[in-house]
Amino acid sequence: MNPIVSIIMGSTSDLPIMEKAAQLLNDFEIPFEMNALSAHRTPAEVEEFATGAQKRGIKVIIAAAGMAAHLPGVIASMTTLPVIGVPIKSSLEGIDALYAIVQMPPGIPVATVGINASLNAAILATQILALTDKDIAEKVKTYKAGLAKKIKDANSELAKIEYKFKTN
Amino acid sequence: MNPIVSIIMGSTSDLPIMEKAAQLLNDFEIPFEMNALSAHRTPAEVEEFATGAQKRGIKVIIAAAGMAAHLPGVIASMTTLPVIGVPIKSSLEGIDALYAIVQMPPGIPVATVGINASLNAAILATQILALTDKDIAEKVKTYKAGLAKKIKDANSELAKIEYKFKTN
Amino acid sequence: MNPIVSIIMGSTSDLPIMEKAAQLLNDFEIPFEMNALSAHRTPAEVEEFATGAQKRGIKVIIAAAGMAAHLPGVIASMTTLPVIGVPIKSSLEGIDALYAIVQMPPGIPVATVGINASLNAAILATQILALTDKDIAEKVKTYKAGLAKKIKDANSELAKIEYKFKTN
Amino acid sequence: MNPIVSIIMGSTSDLPIMEKAAQLLNDFEIPFEMNALSAHRTPAEVEEFATGAQKRGIKVIIAAAGMAAHLPGVIASMTTLPVIGVPIKSSLEGIDALYAIVQMPPGIPVATVGINASLNAAILATQILALTDKDIAEKVKTYKAGLAKKIKDANSELAKIEYKFKTN
Amino acid sequence: MNPIVSIIMGSTSDLPIMEKAAQLLNDFEIPFEMNALSAHRTPAEVEEFATGAQKRGIKVIIAAAGMAAHLPGVIASMTTLPVIGVPIKSSLEGIDALYAIVQMPPGIPVATVGINASLNAAILATQILALTDKDIAEKVKTYKAGLAKKIKDANSELAKIEYKFKTN
Amino acid sequence: MNPIVSIIMGSTSDLPIMEKAAQLLNDFEIPFEMNALSAHRTPAEVEEFATGAQKRGIKVIIAAAGMAAHLPGVIASMTTLPVIGVPIKSSLEGIDALYAIVQMPPGIPVATVGINASLNAAILATQILALTDKDIAEKVKTYKAGLAKKIKDANSELAKIEYKFKTN
Amino acid sequence: MNPIVSIIMGSTSDLPIMEKAAQLLNDFEIPFEMNALSAHRTPAEVEEFATGAQKRGIKVIIAAAGMAAHLPGVIASMTTLPVIGVPIKSSLEGIDALYAIVQMPPGIPVATVGINASLNAAILATQILALTDKDIAEKVKTYKAGLAKKIKDANSELAKIEYKFKTN
Amino acid sequence: MNPIVSIIMGSTSDLPIMEKAAQLLNDFEIPFEMNALSAHRTPAEVEEFATGAQKRGIKVIIAAAGMAAHLPGVIASMTTLPVIGVPIKSSLEGIDALYAIVQMPPGIPVATVGINASLNAAILATQILALTDKDIAEKVKTYKAGLAKKIKDANSELAKIEYKFKTN
Repeated sequence: MNPIVSIIMGSTSDLPIMEKAAQLLNDFEIPFEMNALSAHRTPAEVEEFATGAQKRGIKVIIAAAGMAAHLPGVIASMTTLPVIGVPIKSSLEGIDALYAIVQMPPGIPVATVGINASLNAAILATQILALTDKDIAEKVKTYKAGLAKKIKDANSELAKIEYKFKTN
Repeated sequence: MNPIVSIIMGSTSDLPIMEKAAQLLNDFEIPFEMNALSAHRTPAEVEEFATGAQKRGIKVIIAAAGMAAHLPGVIASMTTLPVIGVPIKSSLEGIDALYAIVQMPPGIPVATVGINASLNAAILATQILALTDKDIAEKVKTYKAGLAKKIKDANSELAKIEYKFKTN
Repeated sequence: MNPIVSIIMGSTSDLPIMEKAAQLLNDFEIPFEMNALSAHRTPAEVEEFATGAQKRGIKVIIAAAGMAAHLPGVIASMTTLPVIGVPIKSSLEGIDALYAIVQMPPGIPVATVGINASLNAAILATQILALTDKDIAEKVKTYKAGLAKKIKDANSELAKIEYKFKTN
Repeated sequence: MNPIVSIIMGSTSDLPIMEKAAQLLNDFEIPFEMNALSAHRTPAEVEEFATGAQKRGIKVIIAAAGMAAHLPGVIASMTTLPVIGVPIKSSLEGIDALYAIVQMPPGIPVATVGINASLNAAILATQILALTDKDIAEKVKTYKAGLAKKIKDANSELAKIEYKFKTN
Repeated sequence: MNPIVSIIMGSTSDLPIMEKAAQLLNDFEIPFEMNALSAHRTPAEVEEFATGAQKRGIKVIIAAAGMAAHLPGVIASMTTLPVIGVPIKSSLEGIDALYAIVQMPPGIPVATVGINASLNAAILATQILALTDKDIAEKVKTYKAGLAKKIKDANSELAKIEYKFKTN
Repeated sequence: MNPIVSIIMGSTSDLPIMEKAAQLLNDFEIPFEMNALSAHRTPAEVEEFATGAQKRGIKVIIAAAGMAAHLPGVIASMTTLPVIGVPIKSSLEGIDALYAIVQMPPGIPVATVGINASLNAAILATQILALTDKDIAEKVKTYKAGLAKKIKDANSELAKIEYKFKTN
Repeated sequence: MNPIVSIIMGSTSDLPIMEKAAQLLNDFEIPFEMNALSAHRTPAEVEEFATGAQKRGIKVIIAAAGMAAHLPGVIASMTTLPVIGVPIKSSLEGIDALYAIVQMPPGIPVATVGINASLNAAILATQILALTDKDIAEKVKTYKAGLAKKIKDANSELAKIEYKFKTN
Repeated sequence: MNPIVSIIMGSTSDLPIMEKAAQLLNDFEIPFEMNALSAHRTPAEVEEFATGAQKRGIKVIIAAAGMAAHLPGVIASMTTLPVIGVPIKSSLEGIDALYAIVQMPPGIPVATVGINASLNAAILATQILALTDKDIAEKVKTYKAGLAKKIKDANSELAKIEYKFKTN
């Protein structure tokens, strides 16, 4: 089984946040790998990873980093694969990471999602993969349709709340 | 009993904050409904709600949302009823929600209150309703007059604090 | 002709921004007045205005202010009429005025619109008035329907732009 | 010629910024369309566009908006196609638009690029398309390789600058 | 004993912060009073207080408030006594209160101290009083000289910390 | 003629802003001096100034600085005179200067006014001096009373603006 | 043993953060001293320290401070030794301290590291010392090479995590 | 003549800002080189530069970059030389660049100076070089002593300003 999505994080402390991405890819039965890399601590490994990912069959890269979060941008500079960046909140409410990921210079985009929004990163990956994979496309549609369920459940719960002048 | 105020929230996690709005409307004996809707998860239901609210007798809509809080603005774009937006703090100190609600483009205003300020949303609703309902108008006046009480209580408490050189 | 909307600003330097509100009310044929008041320079006049507005037939107050923008909140504390606040950008990108208007304490809401968004303030006023005035309600609906026109015009303009691989 | 990328903007005032995206797609000989839509002014058209885009052969949507920028997120909620969001700077240095686009709730990601970064949006689109189109893939590689040229040119220019103690 | 400093706060919830100011004034044996007032809940009392303070012998007013903190500015607009403003942190890290206090319009200054910095407010009051009261002046000098003590104590503590290569 | 207020600035580039303070003091016939000092470039002169000011008869110090604005705080640490700090906007919208002046540690307050608010600094100085100088006190009262004039003038101007539905 | 690095902090409350700097210098066997100084409480001691440090053999100064963090800049103004500034987070997420340290005026730089980043301050000191000390240079190289280890450990940990569709 | 300082910038558009650094090094007669590199456009050249700089005799690197400014940090990760980072203001008032440079993760510090503060970067470089070069040390001392001149000139200019109540 060859991975087609690669989840990269800068530290195992990012794992509790990135697990949501792994879980969603797993639920979609999309083979993925999960590794730690650091733009600053292991630049050679980053280069090896980024320049070799496409050949290994990777189609989308999800890269998470905090603070002066260079990892997603540095990977993006070394591959033509789409790179999805997840700003991790570890200081300054995550704004430092958000700016360091989204404000990339002309030529090297990173597809940035919200602060700590690893789930959205994984969904975005599936939407990209769905462009050419009917199975995944079907699952994305089902998933998106299912999003309404949480709202229905919320309404059931809200219906139980009683006030004298609450009419529903 | 037909509701004249509709409280909308994006998730039951907003309920602890929105309960203050419900309680105030209840105290004012203003019939209201309370539902969950999502600009992104249930767009069709949002449209159905927003376009149909006026016919059902709703006069004011209170919509709460966090993060990229589109719900109040999207509802406002589909109705001519006044929409009161409550930015919910769930990230970035609530600034993301505040900006996403208050900075609406020309043509589609949302009456924005403070971050997590659901009570103020409900009071604003009563002030709007009071324009044509003498009963509510009377209650609003009584309520506003009662606001001073908290300060009087505070002064009673402060009066008990003793310092040698405190004169009151 | 008695005014039913009162536009208040802190300085004539706010006039270029507030004219959009005046123009819209005028277009809607809604009688309005326009005055300068200052929470700090003319507190007595503010009090006289705020406590007397309702008796004079005013139904909605639009108050604009910049910097430490106390005017909307101070007026709101002295009337039960709905007060719409317009943060004026004169320093700090208008964030100081926005916070000083929207972050009101529990009990005294100000219906805040976007920075410099006087047009939206006026539209919000018409939406509130429309609750009990069929003529205004009709105009609001027409106005809102007309909002789409700007987009249609934009599309006409975009249609004229030519690129070899632009298909429309 | 059927478009495979759709560029959406909220106003023709966004055109000077979005032209860079159009130009790049044109240079890559990727058929695209360019339209104005508004989440708030033309919600019906947005829905029609978003729900019909995939059937018309669109593979990637680029959506630009400023202020309380709901357009990219609202489109994303109605399609499973990847949506790339471009925050337009028109107030608050563009931070309001950035937050309103990137901070999407779980389930509906928008692939956000930098403030006014329409060129990066187009490049990201080509990188996604390149996953299944060898021609585009080739062009992306050539383009990315060419990015270094600007730096080489910069070095040529810097080489001409003379200081007594400048050694190169 | 007539008070010469008046400490005003918007709520008893500010008391834990404002106690430091009271304690310092007490330590300096400066008669003070401590009351709750609200620019919005008790505007008449604020006016009565502000316009009457000087006649009662008050020389400096310390006013604390959070959120859209209008109290210090509103008091300052109704008296010629120096008003020291203390921004209370209750939302947005206290930035809303800071801006609402310090960014006063031309003509009505508030002497603003740091967020939650009630101790500094009291010291500033003593420095103002010291201009014409030799006893207080002496105490201020002693107090300021004593500030160095905390640093001396810190050095004693730091001296005890042992590292092999720590030389002191 | 001995000065009783000392205006200090870090650079002549601050002069256009600080002139408003000088003009107001001059209008009040309050003797003042005006000097440039730098916490970083002339620390010895700062110390000499700060430690000697009181003996020379100075009663209030107004210190203006931009960026990492240390000057007001450093002066405040070396005198028991009240120091009024004026944050100068030269970068980051003046927020860096504001924070560097207002967020002083416990024990050394700086009475901070708004960004570039030199006029308010001078008025605050007169309010402090007015505590013990009846002439100045009278002038402050006259000045404050005169503040309303600008609003009256504004109303005259607003009265001239004509709209069909403008009632005043 | 004479110290060549001097760690200065404004309060023992900074010690838990600054210990990382001490530990690293100790691990590198670099003699250092550790003292408390305050730009505001002990200005004379700061001057004595700053003007005398070089003669005592100090080569690099690490200065930590929070809030309106003047200490690093004030020291830098009185010595030609490189001063490394560590912004301590004690309010406003540490942004006040960051700005007050990094935004120094032309002529007096402070080498600023991240918020609470005392470890990086110490490493930067070793990198400066390494320019002329081969032993330290060797240790820096070893240390930097060792940084990759944490990533390797992270990968070992990530390898243990099992998902059905995780391929590594 | 071999360079001992290397000035790196991401684009010739940074040149107007970085010229101040070049000029100061030239005035100090310190051999330097000036090149353009991009962490994203020319990663291989960055690596070659960073890993080879020390062998070529470079002692200090000054790296300037804007937006998601990765260049200083990426260089710092590949060398043990001290790297001075200059955040260039090209969006978001330069805050994005500041955060992306200063908030480096543990292990890889960048000595950050203020936004656009290239002159301070060069001075910091000379202070580091001065540790082991008596000639440079002498020049740094002379330069720092000369800083006071600008203040003296300012005082001469301020002395010429006349107000009736200005005493100096």
